[in-house]
Amino acid sequence: MVEVNYQKVTPELAARLAEITGPRYVIYADSEKMFPYSHDETFEGGYTSMPEVVVKPRTAAEISRIMQLAVQERIPVTPRGAGSGLSGGAVPLFGGILLSLERMDSILEIDRENLMVVVEPGVITNELNRTLAGEGLFYAGYPLSLESCFIGGNVAENAGGARAVKYGVTGRYVHGLEVVLPGGEILELGGKRLKDVTGYDLLHLLVGSEGTLGIFTRITLRVLPLPPASAVLLAPFPDVESAVKAAPRMMIETGIIPSAIELLDRRSMELCCRFRGEKVPNMETAGSYLLIEVDGALEEVERSYNLLADKCLDGGALDVYVANTPTTREKFWKLRAVIGEALKAYCGENAAEDIVVPPANIPALLAECENLSSRYGLDSVCFGHLGDGNLHIHLLKKEENMPPEKWREAVHAVLSKLYTRARLLGGTLSGEHGIGHKRKKYLPYVMGEAELALMQGIKTVFDPTGILNPGKITGPDPGP
Amino acid sequence: MVEVNYQKVTPELAARLAEITGPRYVIYADSEKMFPYSHDETFEGGYTSMPEVVVKPRTAAEISRIMQLAVQERIPVTPRGAGSGLSGGAVPLFGGILLSLERMDSILEIDRENLMVVVEPGVITNELNRTLAGEGLFYAGYPLSLESCFIGGNVAENAGGARAVKYGVTGRYVHGLEVVLPGGEILELGGKRLKDVTGYDLLHLLVGSEGTLGIFTRITLRVLPLPPASAVLLAPFPDVESAVKAAPRMMIETGIIPSAIELLDRRSMELCCRFRGEKVPNMETAGSYLLIEVDGALEEVERSYNLLADKCLDGGALDVYVANTPTTREKFWKLRAVIGEALKAYCGENAAEDIVVPPANIPALLAECENLSSRYGLDSVCFGHLGDGNLHIHLLKKEENMPPEKWREAVHAVLSKLYTRARLLGGTLSGEHGIGHKRKKYLPYVMGEAELALMQGIKTVFDPTGILNPGKITGPDPGP
Repeated sequence: MVEVNYQKVTPELAARLAEITGPRYVIYADSEKMFPYSHDETFEGGYTSMPEVVVKPRTAAEISRIMQLAVQERIPVTPRGAGSGLSGGAVPLFGGILLSLERMDSILEIDRENLMVVVEPGVITNELNRTLAGEGLFYAGYPLSLESCFIGGNVAENAGGARAVKYGVTGRYVHGLEVVLPGGEILELGGKRLKDVTGYDLLHLLVGSEGTLGIFTRITLRVLPLPPASAVLLAPFPDVESAVKAAPRMMIETGIIPSAIELLDRRSMELCCRFRGEKVPNMETAGSYLLIEVDGALEEVERSYNLLADKCLDGGALDVYVANTPTTREKFWKLRAVIGEALKAYCGENAAEDIVVPPANIPALLAECENLSSRYGLDSVCFGHLGDGNLHIHLLKKEENMPPEKWREAVHAVLSKLYTRARLLGGTLSGEHGIGHKRKKYLPYVMGEAELALMQGIKTVFDPTGILNPGKITGPDPGP
Repeated sequence: MVEVNYQKVTPELAARLAEITGPRYVIYADSEKMFPYSHDETFEGGYTSMPEVVVKPRTAAEISRIMQLAVQERIPVTPRGAGSGLSGGAVPLFGGILLSLERMDSILEIDRENLMVVVEPGVITNELNRTLAGEGLFYAGYPLSLESCFIGGNVAENAGGARAVKYGVTGRYVHGLEVVLPGGEILELGGKRLKDVTGYDLLHLLVGSEGTLGIFTRITLRVLPLPPASAVLLAPFPDVESAVKAAPRMMIETGIIPSAIELLDRRSMELCCRFRGEKVPNMETAGSYLLIEVDGALEEVERSYNLLADKCLDGGALDVYVANTPTTREKFWKLRAVIGEALKAYCGENAAEDIVVPPANIPALLAECENLSSRYGLDSVCFGHLGDGNLHIHLLKKEENMPPEKWREAVHAVLSKLYTRARLLGGTLSGEHGIGHKRKKYLPYVMGEAELALMQGIKTVFDPTGILNPGKITGPDPGP
């Protein structure tokens, strides 16, 4: 463990923060108001830590002054977007200053000529898309938390989501960043340019750095013409394996890359249906469901869903249902989107995983998961982004009254073995939720000393005093 | 200038290299055989430097041993692909060991289930595509040097090319790298996974690092289903401005992202036609030409080129010519592809630039270029990737007998002012050719101290002894 020597936030420091942002935007010595900033949406307990002070700056210049103060006084600073993260990345592990970007929520520019938008980090992802739709444009980043998450958090986590199989993840669309470095310098990286090989790609090193290397204050994103049409197919398969095999084959044989290929195992589909009070066909015989979306010009979408439906049937699908009206499309997507809530309602505590493997190795991973779960007295459900090989496995207690200590031990035993197996299958810990605090201890299961040392070295280059979001990805762990 | 203290290659060191690779694969004390390794394809003179020894390893293990030896003896090592670079990146500025990847030229795996290929760095880009075509697949990286360049070089430079507007640049397709670090450690980064947020994105930091942070020995690339059809439009416009304005508008209004939108000004089209002994229509009245490619399913391609042709005409095109057979498509592309050779034939020495700006600012950049060129007694031609805002401006001597000293001064005067203007227009030095040695001195024109310091810091983390490809992007300059 690295030695930590952070100072405490004093009333004087809180007053100096208030001078920077105005006193309305500082919360100090008020546990109730600070509590919402002590956690994110991580399913498991144990990822909560109270800040000593919350500050809500409005500009990069204010953030720069806060960082200079923090360095000078050796106070840790944890940046926070919407708090919708799933790995504890925005949790102020060492207390200190919680820096919320919630007030930096403006869409600064929609540039139709260059197909770019410039936004502040606190813009809600789907609000950007609602605004863009009026211009015939869309932003292709699509985390399923899009109704609450911030663009800044999407960039910090390099968020993925359901449409990455065709559109890629957040980083593909990030072309410019204004960023405040831990020392307070304000840097402009990239801009409205589609290509840039001018030196090392610092911009995309910052994307996905989970708020540990810098704080984004302005983000330039590429947008695309809004596809005029889309359709969703729901295809029940007899088992997971046949669904997994059907997916790449349909892409090669038709030349079509769907905008989404989501997998739900029978168990997760049951939970979603129960939560929504709905039914889907073939529940008696289906072992899994594929939810496939295509988008584009109307003629292209019609051609595509007919071809893909045929390929699903060729691949063993029990049937195929097409949703090509807004209502039916939304019905299918809603089922998929509620899975998180449905799981929380079903079983308060569960371990939400985010393993990614080469898509063809998903059946092997799931088989191992079932073995391990049952060996350690746990249950599991599985769903996720089949097109990307990014599976969300949730471990659940088999018996509600399993003692907390035993539950934690069982989860650790399953995960450590599952991660090792994932590595051997060509996979890794996290496809889109990130490392944060939650998965830091598992990094050595998938990477060696040299890689860990490079990451620590990079952290030190950006943040020599170690005050920015300490304990995430690299760095110290808080005491017990 | 950083102090440099490299040692010279001795006969003993050459012998130790021969022990590692076998004596057949070491060239020492043979200037004639070493000469081809002293330069790349940079147009301007002055980017040539002889290696002291050339070594051609076959495996990552051999490269690891070479690097350990080099660190121990303090000998600089310059990795080299096909030598088709345009910024001096593969030139051994400080002599030392030239490490050629030419023998590592195997396609190791075509994985249809995961839509991935695994290749060695010395595979020629278009040879990969010829092999993949037989499988109904393609690799979307498309530098126009694709008949000679190596995949490893493409990754090292994050090569762009003509199809980036739809398909993005090389980095988008790189999902795994085996890399030998300067100290000799062999690292595995990424793999056959489409998403990965497990720690900092070291993989994409290495992409585009121009052989200064590590040497790639195995590369995992995503491939796509081969589009069954394509068509090329040639649209003459009365001037550059109307062509530039037409491009984004056609994308927004049709929802179609063409696979290429290339611009040639009248001058570069004339040179290409003269070089090929061909004619294109409207040469009397056209001020520029757009070459637009669409690909996809046959019906989609037909629909797309009709829509785009209409939009070209709406945008002021003098006419539109459609090439939808292999022969006519190739005729149009060949005209664009020969521009480099045509320019060399027309004027032996010219300064080839690679500025990228927001596409809408291209007319402003070109106006400034014309002003500056004529002010300093130079000529200029311009062509490039309009869809990306990535323009290749070539400065030429107006009078063939301009004295070398005056030519160099004029080029420097124009470039330093042009880069400053590019920065103010939201652009930067290089969209796809890289910094290498050629543009290193211009980095401060587009980035500040803090950014340069971060890059130097990262270089030191990867290469603490500074032996890998010194003098490129960061680091020391050789003496006069």
